[in-house]
Amino acid sequence: MDAKVIKQEGQTLKIVGTSPVRPDGTPKVTGLARYGADFALPGMLWGAILRSPHAHARIRAIDTSKARALPGVKAVITAEDFPEQKFEFVGPERVAVNFWHMTRNVMAREKVLYEGHAVAAVAATSKAIAEEALRLIEVDYEPLPHVIDVDAAMQPDAPLLFEDMITRGIDPPPGKPSNIAKRIEFNIGDLDAGFAAADEIVEMSFKTAPVHQGYIEPHACLARFDSNGQGELWSASQGHFVVRAFTARLLNMNIGDVLVHPAEIGGGFGGKTVIYVEPLAAALSRKSGHPVKIMMSREDVFKATGPTSGSSMTVRIGVKKDGTLVAADGVFKFQAGAFPGSPVMNATMCGFAPYDIPNVRSVGYDVVSNRPKSAAYRAPGSPISAFAVESVMDAVAARIGMDPLKFRLLNACKTGTPTVWGPKHAHDGYAETIKAVLAHPAYAAPLGKNQGRGVASGFWFNNGGESSATVHVNEDGTVVVATGSMDIGGSRASMAIMAAETLGIEYDDVRAIVADTASIGYTHVTGGSRVTFATGIAVVEACKKVIVELCARAAMIWKLEPGEVVWENGCAKPAGAAAGKFEPMPLKAVAAKRALTGGPIGAEASVNAGGAAPGFATELCDVEVDPETGSVKILRFVVAQDVGRAIHRSYVEGQLEGGVVQGIGWALNEAYIYDDAGHLLNAGFLDYRIPVASDLPMIETVLVEVPNPNHPYGVKGAGEVNIVPAMAAVANAINNAISRRLTDLPMSPPKVLAAIHSGRKG
Amino acid sequence: MDAKVIKQEGQTLKIVGTSPVRPDGTPKVTGLARYGADFALPGMLWGAILRSPHAHARIRAIDTSKARALPGVKAVITAEDFPEQKFEFVGPERVAVNFWHMTRNVMAREKVLYEGHAVAAVAATSKAIAEEALRLIEVDYEPLPHVIDVDAAMQPDAPLLFEDMITRGIDPPPGKPSNIAKRIEFNIGDLDAGFAAADEIVEMSFKTAPVHQGYIEPHACLARFDSNGQGELWSASQGHFVVRAFTARLLNMNIGDVLVHPAEIGGGFGGKTVIYVEPLAAALSRKSGHPVKIMMSREDVFKATGPTSGSSMTVRIGVKKDGTLVAADGVFKFQAGAFPGSPVMNATMCGFAPYDIPNVRSVGYDVVSNRPKSAAYRAPGSPISAFAVESVMDAVAARIGMDPLKFRLLNACKTGTPTVWGPKHAHDGYAETIKAVLAHPAYAAPLGKNQGRGVASGFWFNNGGESSATVHVNEDGTVVVATGSMDIGGSRASMAIMAAETLGIEYDDVRAIVADTASIGYTHVTGGSRVTFATGIAVVEACKKVIVELCARAAMIWKLEPGEVVWENGCAKPAGAAAGKFEPMPLKAVAAKRALTGGPIGAEASVNAGGAAPGFATELCDVEVDPETGSVKILRFVVAQDVGRAIHRSYVEGQLEGGVVQGIGWALNEAYIYDDAGHLLNAGFLDYRIPVASDLPMIETVLVEVPNPNHPYGVKGAGEVNIVPAMAAVANAINNAISRRLTDLPMSPPKVLAAIHSGRKG
Repeated sequence: MDAKVIKQEGQTLKIVGTSPVRPDGTPKVTGLARYGADFALPGMLWGAILRSPHAHARIRAIDTSKARALPGVKAVITAEDFPEQKFEFVGPERVAVNFWHMTRNVMAREKVLYEGHAVAAVAATSKAIAEEALRLIEVDYEPLPHVIDVDAAMQPDAPLLFEDMITRGIDPPPGKPSNIAKRIEFNIGDLDAGFAAADEIVEMSFKTAPVHQGYIEPHACLARFDSNGQGELWSASQGHFVVRAFTARLLNMNIGDVLVHPAEIGGGFGGKTVIYVEPLAAALSRKSGHPVKIMMSREDVFKATGPTSGSSMTVRIGVKKDGTLVAADGVFKFQAGAFPGSPVMNATMCGFAPYDIPNVRSVGYDVVSNRPKSAAYRAPGSPISAFAVESVMDAVAARIGMDPLKFRLLNACKTGTPTVWGPKHAHDGYAETIKAVLAHPAYAAPLGKNQGRGVASGFWFNNGGESSATVHVNEDGTVVVATGSMDIGGSRASMAIMAAETLGIEYDDVRAIVADTASIGYTHVTGGSRVTFATGIAVVEACKKVIVELCARAAMIWKLEPGEVVWENGCAKPAGAAAGKFEPMPLKAVAAKRALTGGPIGAEASVNAGGAAPGFATELCDVEVDPETGSVKILRFVVAQDVGRAIHRSYVEGQLEGGVVQGIGWALNEAYIYDDAGHLLNAGFLDYRIPVASDLPMIETVLVEVPNPNHPYGVKGAGEVNIVPAMAAVANAINNAISRRLTDLPMSPPKVLAAIHSGRKG
Repeated sequence: MDAKVIKQEGQTLKIVGTSPVRPDGTPKVTGLARYGADFALPGMLWGAILRSPHAHARIRAIDTSKARALPGVKAVITAEDFPEQKFEFVGPERVAVNFWHMTRNVMAREKVLYEGHAVAAVAATSKAIAEEALRLIEVDYEPLPHVIDVDAAMQPDAPLLFEDMITRGIDPPPGKPSNIAKRIEFNIGDLDAGFAAADEIVEMSFKTAPVHQGYIEPHACLARFDSNGQGELWSASQGHFVVRAFTARLLNMNIGDVLVHPAEIGGGFGGKTVIYVEPLAAALSRKSGHPVKIMMSREDVFKATGPTSGSSMTVRIGVKKDGTLVAADGVFKFQAGAFPGSPVMNATMCGFAPYDIPNVRSVGYDVVSNRPKSAAYRAPGSPISAFAVESVMDAVAARIGMDPLKFRLLNACKTGTPTVWGPKHAHDGYAETIKAVLAHPAYAAPLGKNQGRGVASGFWFNNGGESSATVHVNEDGTVVVATGSMDIGGSRASMAIMAAETLGIEYDDVRAIVADTASIGYTHVTGGSRVTFATGIAVVEACKKVIVELCARAAMIWKLEPGEVVWENGCAKPAGAAAGKFEPMPLKAVAAKRALTGGPIGAEASVNAGGAAPGFATELCDVEVDPETGSVKILRFVVAQDVGRAIHRSYVEGQLEGGVVQGIGWALNEAYIYDDAGHLLNAGFLDYRIPVASDLPMIETVLVEVPNPNHPYGVKGAGEVNIVPAMAAVANAINNAISRRLTDLPMSPPKVLAAIHSGRKG
């Protein structure tokens, strides 16, 4: 990696920061874009998945003989069709993956662990036959007691999902198994001394509900695997290289024998970084000799794909009267779903990260229960702990009579501030987001009756990592950019902008695509707000190589030495001793002579990009609470986020708006509702209510730009941190309106009404 | 380009020259492979093309109103939907393309020039509606006199296809237009003096019929273009970059706005280097806002896609009694079809190329007539002139009583022999193919009654040119190779072999794919036997870059200098001062640490490869002629071809076998049969007879390997020259059997019977 800064503050940018037309816009709005379910092949079968009706049961036997005998059924698979995986943490360096868990989540083996857990799958000549075949599969279940809630799951007598699971992270290890997969603890300073020095201490407990990412597009894929051990997949995911690696592993194939084509993606938000239907479709295809398509229903998505964790948390913060934070303690218990792997580690790291606090303890628990395994969701973990921490921060500010933003500004982390996980913060940006909201007209605007204003802040790491890009000059001098990053938030547009800016040509002369897994170097998932940063570096690096080549070609044409040509404003230009000898030659003119000067012009770059800068956001929310119904209306919402530098301005604004809207849904409405048998009662968008346009004001975005020196255009990941403060901002606003602190998400009308009537003041 | 020879004679090759399992074999034989017609998209429309019923007519008007009004019809297009193109020779440097012709061939504008010429196209919600709509389009034609035969088309009073076409290549230009587009003449030495010095002179005239490439898969494509000016195409072609360039041009689009995905291809043989349905599907898609699929019928393929030219030829050869050739004269009149561009230039160049003749004149005419425009067909032009030249050579050998192979050997070209087009031959190989047949047991085998033996030779240029490849190391150390070359003859297998050999790893650890036009650098068509040569060089170059990177990564792991690590037998190995310090590290071990040493490992290479070596073949054919029916049975066929070096042995043998079989069909059976109105009477494989297995013996292949020093493994293109001698070999064998020289292809039973009964001896 060679991420020299080539454009930073003070330099003139022509295209970066503008909002040109999105190349994928017209196909998306006219229905031409191809999503995961839009692929078809001749001879294609329809796959269907048999799912557990039980929240927890042992599988005594599965009899598929009647299903296999049904005319039109071409293959039936169960866990027997997948090789056993070792109970070990392996996988790509940056993502430790437990394949023993993964193969069991994809297809239940000894037990079903949640309602909707896949038990068998069928491929047949029609959807109707496939579904009929499912009804013919006989599963002999031994139902077991189940547990849904995280606190309940941590009880010593709770039903155990894994009878031999000993909590990791405790020394010495506990003597008996439990549902607690792992305990984490981070510390700075001396917690007891810190609290002893505090003038005021506030401690509160919180619960949050698991919420689903709520992407529009259910999981779908088409698989074409052959008996010779090679195959192809078409699927919408956040990372087709990861789909390839995971699917190959679960099928015991070489990675090189699996080719994954990207599809357009209808939202992922972290939930499409893992696989569900892909290995099933692949196994059915290999077994049947036909292409197989599997599409989830919305009910499948709710019951069998990852929401984020629910939690139970206690946060205690100590402060001096002058507003100086002196101690903070957090205990974060995260419900991981049926298999370990909640984002509790992130939560324990991010919760207090925005602040300079000398004495901190942050403890996390990763707890399994009989719900779908949690998956990543926008800044995974951070919004949950932020809800607790930022609520307590609000209460602390009130306790000492300090403006909540000025209180945060006083304690804001900056370059050099220690973190609980060790390294010091390496970037500024947080204080600037607080100042942006302080300066925003909304902060001084008057409020009416039953109205309240809340603020909150948040931190998110942002990732770098492995990305690859190619840049090719076409015969007519237009340029194509290919990357391995699935485009969720507009990366085709942002990559084209960065390429056009770097090459010095027009945006419309550059088109970007997402290449398949055999056509480009390994690229990690579109997640962790890493793409514009890491893949962007790869694109700029590739453009720089292309510029070197373009100069060399111009030198050949002019019969100059390569060193005598420079690239300026999209043209090769004689320089040094040759300066002025020839008119500058535009890229299109160099391209026209490519065949005579050595052939096609293009370059590839791969990076494992370090130097990602974290995201900070500060948000302001105004609400009006209806005292008769408890209904909360969002009146106004301002989000100020440090994005380093916006590449495609309106896409970045869209990220901020989207994160806030998801946070509002999490705050006010979204929750999984289970009956006593562990059955999900609201597995659909009619009953699981995400915000719609009429629920929302225009979200006001403030793009704070403190450039990241480790990216050629200063990018900091912009996709995630915007969701982090949102629930606390809403809760703080409600508290401001009704003087009642809501600590249990969602803050639905019945809970708000109950709080109003409780007489308890927050 | 840096095509240093890294493996040549004397070096040990582990995989090159073997015949490992083809990666595309299982999908092809199990029906899983995706051909041009196998793609579908939601909302897809079916396209249909209205074709001219006339061989020649002026289009007075087209009324599409009734078709447009038919429910289900979403778009109707005519030539008006395509921008006019300039009458100029432009296009990629290596292929001058006349887009004024191309747009008219794709969609008739002022006139229809052949039966089947596209006049309008429709996109509708079903095939039936689209076809119904065609019947509702009213075309007001003014029928014109037509001409089919090449000699008839050259007559001064022939109906003119282009009223203003003045023959090029004649100085001064003719005063009046004609159907002769171009005259070509090549000369060496003093022709009259040469013939004056000859002891014997043989002159003969020939006619050959146009024959179709006979690929199994009719042209088909799926297009998805949007109103925003960007689009995608899926089609089976011999070059998706050329499909992209041509389609973009005809639609007045930037090349970067068109993305073409390769499909599996069911044969091309040159006939899929041009476009027919692609711009129509694209225009219909853009106009309708839906994806559009167009599939040709077999009848469409025969009536409206390019066969190779028919011809009328006269060849005269003069020789000394000792067998020394002293003079040769050839006049080759080629029927180009409805637009100029027959392969007559190649024919005039290749005809006498195998021989060292001091005095040569080679004249060609490119002549239009009312037939589909000719397209490339396996060594375009060369088999036609070779039929004439090699028949005369046979007669000359007989005249002077010399063995026909020894006669050829005596006069065989070698490095340094002049060519009619200027440069001297730069490679040997021809003599070796003659010697291989001389030494073959077949040449001395006895013949029975009514049996005869013929031999003939042939020359083909073989191309190099622009190719691109990428090589990526996967996380598990398997490797993917991507190229821009459509795989017709096994290039995925041969690229994987060359990559595995270069990297020193197992063949099964390498998979090769064909990448789309946005994922890899420009790559010219799969044609001219260029792929294993030029694209192979790109693959080897990319592998060499990967090896440099692998050594650098191993050096990082070992904390050595990059120069202290070498690559040997698939492993990094400490060398120099560090030799022996560490155990050699296999590729998979280096790959496992890629993330920690800088990220993904891969490389790209693009070349404009010069140094292609020509192909030579010498063939032996034994026939038995049925004196009662005139039917010719092929008893035995031996083909010896200099392939430089076979990469995938059985694929190369397959190329030789395939070329011979196509030559046998051309020799004995294939022809277009027209009625007096210029209507094709045999537009189907029942009436247009290509050889089937029962018509053929096993073809015996002899791979002569005189390595090409300009390719790392010595490759010479192997796909084409095998067809060149075939018709002459058959004709010479028939002459040997019945003492009658057949000069008019195909040598069908009626013609053979007529020759037998004519009493004329050859």
